[in-house]
Amino acid sequence: MSEDVDLPESHPRYESLLTRHRIEAGVDRGITSRQGLIAQGRGEAFDYLLGERTIDSADDAERAAAAHLLSAEHAVISVNGNAAALVPGELVELAEVTGADLEVNLFNRTEERIEAIADYLREHGATDVKGLTADGRIPGLDHERAKVDADGIGAADVVLVPLEDGDRAEALGEMGKTELVIDLNPRSRSAEVATVPIVDNIIRAIPNITEHARALRGDPDAQRDAIDTFDADSALTDAERTIREGDLE
Amino acid sequence: MSEDVDLPESHPRYESLLTRHRIEAGVDRGITSRQGLIAQGRGEAFDYLLGERTIDSADDAERAAAAHLLSAEHAVISVNGNAAALVPGELVELAEVTGADLEVNLFNRTEERIEAIADYLREHGATDVKGLTADGRIPGLDHERAKVDADGIGAADVVLVPLEDGDRAEALGEMGKTELVIDLNPRSRSAEVATVPIVDNIIRAIPNITEHARALRGDPDAQRDAIDTFDADSALTDAERTIREGDLE
Repeated sequence: MSEDVDLPESHPRYESLLTRHRIEAGVDRGITSRQGLIAQGRGEAFDYLLGERTIDSADDAERAAAAHLLSAEHAVISVNGNAAALVPGELVELAEVTGADLEVNLFNRTEERIEAIADYLREHGATDVKGLTADGRIPGLDHERAKVDADGIGAADVVLVPLEDGDRAEALGEMGKTELVIDLNPRSRSAEVATVPIVDNIIRAIPNITEHARALRGDPDAQRDAIDTFDADSALTDAERTIREGDLE
Repeated sequence: MSEDVDLPESHPRYESLLTRHRIEAGVDRGITSRQGLIAQGRGEAFDYLLGERTIDSADDAERAAAAHLLSAEHAVISVNGNAAALVPGELVELAEVTGADLEVNLFNRTEERIEAIADYLREHGATDVKGLTADGRIPGLDHERAKVDADGIGAADVVLVPLEDGDRAEALGEMGKTELVIDLNPRSRSAEVATVPIVDNIIRAIPNITEHARALRGDPDAQRDAIDTFDADSALTDAERTIREGDLE
C-alpha cells in the first residue's frame, strides 16, 4: 500500500499516513526490520489508547529531556531502525540544537543496517554519525547487544534512547547514565528505569523536545528548573491513567 | 531474530515464540505483508492488555461461532495473510470439522500472495481452497477490495472473518451475512458490526472454536442454545473492561 504524503497537515489522518509512509520508506531502504514493523504496530495500539496526542505529563517530560540534553557534559542520541525511519531529519535537528552526538545503535545489529541508517541520517543533514566503530561495551549484555562507540554512548553522561529494548535500557541505567526514554508503554521496563520517561509517539516527541531546547538554550536556571520539577513516577502514573481511560472507539 | 520453536508447551513464552516464528515463516513465504506485520504488533499490544488468555466471554463467543458454522447453510472461513501464517493447519482442521469452505481473501490483493496462501493451506492439508476465481463482488467497496468468489463468500450465509478490515466487515454485514469476527480490539468497527465478535488471539481462538464444534456437532439443540445465549454487546463490554483493568507491567 503506497500512500500519498502530499497531504495538508490539517488532514485528520495526516500523522498516521506520514508515519505509514516513512515506515514503508524505511523498509525499502533496509532500515526498518521485521521486528521493527511489529514494534511499530504495538506502539500504534498504545498511541491509539493515549488519544494520539502529547499529554501534559509527556510535554513536561519532553521539556525535562531538552534540559538534560542541553546541560549534559556529553549527550548522545541513540538511533535505531524505527527512529531513523520515522524522524530522520528531526533527529538531526535535535542533535544540532542541543549539541548532542547521534549514534546508530541496533538491537539486531548488522553492518549493512548500521551503514544504511548512517547514510540515511547523512542524507538528512547529519555530518557526524557514530556507531560504526563499536569499540566500547555495555557491561551485563551479550556480545552483539553490548556494542557501542567508546567515545559515544560509552562516554556519555546523558543518553536519549527512543524505543529502546528493556535489557539495554536497564544496563545503561546501571552504568550511571541519565537516561531519557521514549516509549508508548508506560509500564515497559525501559520506561520504568528511565530518569525521564517520555510516553509519547516519537513523531511528536522529537520535534517537541527540539522546540523546548530552543526555548531553554542559554538559560541554565530554566534548565535546572525543568529537570528538578519533573517527577518520573507521577508522569508514568498519569500516562497509565490516560491509557486506561482512553477512547477505544 | 530466529527463534527455536522446539520448545515445551509449558514454556512461559511458548505462545509468543510460536507466534513470532510463524509470522517470520509467513514473511519468508510471501504470505505476510508489511501491513500484516504492523497489524500483528497492534494485536500483540491488545493481547498483552487482555492478559494473553481467552477470557470467559471470548470462550462463549467461540462456542457461539462454532454453533453458527455448524448450523449454516453454507459457511465460509475467510483467510488473509496473517491468519494463514499464524494458524494454517488449525484453519484447515476447523473447516473439516464444521464443513465450512476456506476462501483466501486479502485486503491488499495480489495474485502472487493469493497463490502463496492457497499453496500454504494445501501444504497444511486443505483440499479445496477458494478465492482464486474472484467472480463475485461485495457491494459498496472499491474494485480490488470487493472481490470474492461468487460460490464462496458471495453465496455464504455465515462467514468467519479473522482480522478483517472495518470497511469490509461493514459491507459484508450489510449483505445480510452472519459475521463471526476475530479481533483483539473490542471497539474496532469489525468487532462492533459482528454478529459474534471474538476478542481473542487467533492462535487461541481457532483451536478453541474447533473444540467447541466437536462438542456441538450433531446436537442442533445445543447449537441453538449456544447461539441464543450469546450476547455480543455484553461480550464487547466485558472485553473492554478486561483490557482497561489489564496488567501493564
